[in-house]
Amino acid sequence: MTASALSIKLPVMINHAILKELEAVVGVDNLLTSKANLVCYAYDATGQSFMPDAVVLPANTGEVSQIVRLANKYRLPLIPRGAGSGFAGGSVPVRSGIVIHLSRLNKIIEIDAENLIAVVEPCVVTGVFQEEVEKLGLFYPPDPASLKFSTIGGNAATGAGGPRAVKYGVTRDYILGLEVVTPTGEVINTGGKTVKRATGYDLTRLMIGSEGTLGTITKLIVRLIPLPEGKKTMTAFFKTAEDAARSVSGIITSRIVPTTLEFLDKNTLACVKENLGMDLPEETSAMLLIEIDGDPLILDRQAGKIRDACLKNGAIEFNVAANKEESDSLWKARRGASPSMLKFWPGKISEDIVVPRNKIPEMVTRLDTIADKHNLTIASFGHAGDGNLHVNIRVDKKNAEDMKRADEAIKDIFKATVELEGAISGEHGIGISKVPYLRMQLSDAEIGMMKAIKKALDPNNIMNPGKIFD
Amino acid sequence: MTASALSIKLPVMINHAILKELEAVVGVDNLLTSKANLVCYAYDATGQSFMPDAVVLPANTGEVSQIVRLANKYRLPLIPRGAGSGFAGGSVPVRSGIVIHLSRLNKIIEIDAENLIAVVEPCVVTGVFQEEVEKLGLFYPPDPASLKFSTIGGNAATGAGGPRAVKYGVTRDYILGLEVVTPTGEVINTGGKTVKRATGYDLTRLMIGSEGTLGTITKLIVRLIPLPEGKKTMTAFFKTAEDAARSVSGIITSRIVPTTLEFLDKNTLACVKENLGMDLPEETSAMLLIEIDGDPLILDRQAGKIRDACLKNGAIEFNVAANKEESDSLWKARRGASPSMLKFWPGKISEDIVVPRNKIPEMVTRLDTIADKHNLTIASFGHAGDGNLHVNIRVDKKNAEDMKRADEAIKDIFKATVELEGAISGEHGIGISKVPYLRMQLSDAEIGMMKAIKKALDPNNIMNPGKIFD
Repeated sequence: MTASALSIKLPVMINHAILKELEAVVGVDNLLTSKANLVCYAYDATGQSFMPDAVVLPANTGEVSQIVRLANKYRLPLIPRGAGSGFAGGSVPVRSGIVIHLSRLNKIIEIDAENLIAVVEPCVVTGVFQEEVEKLGLFYPPDPASLKFSTIGGNAATGAGGPRAVKYGVTRDYILGLEVVTPTGEVINTGGKTVKRATGYDLTRLMIGSEGTLGTITKLIVRLIPLPEGKKTMTAFFKTAEDAARSVSGIITSRIVPTTLEFLDKNTLACVKENLGMDLPEETSAMLLIEIDGDPLILDRQAGKIRDACLKNGAIEFNVAANKEESDSLWKARRGASPSMLKFWPGKISEDIVVPRNKIPEMVTRLDTIADKHNLTIASFGHAGDGNLHVNIRVDKKNAEDMKRADEAIKDIFKATVELEGAISGEHGIGISKVPYLRMQLSDAEIGMMKAIKKALDPNNIMNPGKIFD
Repeated sequence: MTASALSIKLPVMINHAILKELEAVVGVDNLLTSKANLVCYAYDATGQSFMPDAVVLPANTGEVSQIVRLANKYRLPLIPRGAGSGFAGGSVPVRSGIVIHLSRLNKIIEIDAENLIAVVEPCVVTGVFQEEVEKLGLFYPPDPASLKFSTIGGNAATGAGGPRAVKYGVTRDYILGLEVVTPTGEVINTGGKTVKRATGYDLTRLMIGSEGTLGTITKLIVRLIPLPEGKKTMTAFFKTAEDAARSVSGIITSRIVPTTLEFLDKNTLACVKENLGMDLPEETSAMLLIEIDGDPLILDRQAGKIRDACLKNGAIEFNVAANKEESDSLWKARRGASPSMLKFWPGKISEDIVVPRNKIPEMVTRLDTIADKHNLTIASFGHAGDGNLHVNIRVDKKNAEDMKRADEAIKDIFKATVELEGAISGEHGIGISKVPYLRMQLSDAEIGMMKAIKKALDPNNIMNPGKIFD
């Protein structure tokens, strides 16, 4: 056996010679190895932190391909990274290795109004892209809460959603094609510039939500739609979460699908009220924020139907914004939910679950029961329209007893979620945070199928190892 | 080596003992072996015919699983079949084996208006399902031309589209989850009853469009939307195909996405005129059929904008249907296109291509050039709104010279399609018909990735062998 054959068989820690090879690919300025630099790429929004061995900032797809080939040669973990704003540890280098930061691939290559598509590089910030297409009267609906800093590539890799999913669907529904560097370093194109395309397996959607474990996205073809001409924002306040949930069903069965249909429970509202000094109707225990969009001719009539559905189901107050300023004011509570809660509950644990829309009342009741059982405070808010709730548990992370009870509560929450035909991750992915719970959701056969695909496409387990199932 | 180990290594032709085992699974009435019966399962809409060894009609998922395990044990090809209405040979038993006809899995299990979903078995006829949900004010948009007899399971397996794709997307966009019997006989559930779900790889969409090569679909969770309250049908006639194509771009850039935007070229119109005795404006060389849907309040205004876009781009006549009868009359030409052409061109070859919407004028021009070059008559019609054209070549299939020229023309058509960033199959799949051309579309790396997935999930190559890439 030659030395080079040996080096292919055994995992090698990164060393000076390998760093020199990486430097030859990206240039000295785009290889980061100092501790001060590496620490910036060690975390994501979960706060978990693992130091990488090196960070590379490739200039183009060709360099990404060369990096992947090097990682295979030396069996080094490779972790693609966008904004690092994920909520599940997906971009955290849990086994060290090389972080491939795609920040230089940040161009909007093309916006094509005739074909209603755009071609973008992965590190285009989602919100910036939305502003650009809206200038042309076009619309890219996916709107994860992080859109001011998260990237389209990261959104695709995690399968990100957002408030507008109830009407418009999630990131997955707007990606028509990808350029991907495969786990073995080849450059492939999946899908293309047409909605219809029936030429073999749907590799585009296999990549979406695969959290960097099946390849590195280096370009995206995105579907656009015409920008709705008008929108209208409403809020409704309720004495009980059940009344709010029944209103959600009432709106949908009146054949209106709002753009957003957001829910805030009593504990969330208490934080918002305290933090922002908001006036809420007395006895309020739940709030809905509802937005509709479309032709201005029909918005008033739809708003009337929504008002009817809410009042019929016990709303104690219902407001319609007359203009942009009033709309912003109505959004204040929803936008302030997460920051307000962080202020008063600095050690909160957040989970992202989804249940079928009409199971929300049952889920809210179960969350109360779980909170009581474990002597914890739980607050939930989120996208009632599509059943996606962000569940927050108040804990002192330094208190082992607190954390133990929270752990038990999380298991109960996921158990209830699965019993109600939901999913333990709605739009954040599995990453590392939810790896211990994946078997609550998926059977051995289902996980086995995913692992078989992973092994077939990434025989050396180079791409983002330790994520999803491990 | 034991006999049974040997039987696992070598392919075995079907024999009496195996038939007895199949009979034990499905019962004597649901195992077909007579030549008279088998011939009914030998073909699809392409007219290609290959005899299976046996046909089984399982009653439920458990029986499908047992059949798959038997097929693995004896290395027998297994071909899932719905209505057999495919246009690419996907359900044809090209290597013999067992056809698994899913006709008994034909129940609508649940229609859930609150969650806007339905659960169906694979052999529910798409059109029947649409009628059922429409009775409840709900809408399942995918509408392949075959919807009166094709099945939702078959639509999912082939990645079927239809005229409404321009506004509403294709079958893939409406399947939230599947129950699948894997190639090794395990029963898995992919996706679920929520639009959001970020728990591992998207096996749902990997199955969709995989043409039965990765498993057998035994249940589908389908996404519904509220039924639009109104619709309006229009036709526009043009002197040139270019004028029609420019009108399509004009409509889209005026920020209207019609429900359907269908195109018929001069040769198609000639067949329709001859067959149905339709009156067309003199000098007509192209027609658009345009339908919009939504709130009745906004349809008139949208129709006005569409009329403007067509007249501005040279329409010589523009009609709006005042009622259902007039709408049916306007649809007459489009619905009659395929049957009329079959009547006058009994030996026609049909291809299904797609290009970015604004490349249609260029594609139409290239089709004329290709027809001239090979001394053939070519007619095209289809879904201009999403760039999907059905291209028909007039041939006498018994004339070898004709067929040779047609073969060359098809290669030129696919070459032009790929050059214009399109795809050699828009909504029919690859099946066996397009296997020889797949490398015009996909690179070795792309095909290699698909084959690696196939091998990982179906190690014995049991499921529908010889399809897509082989």
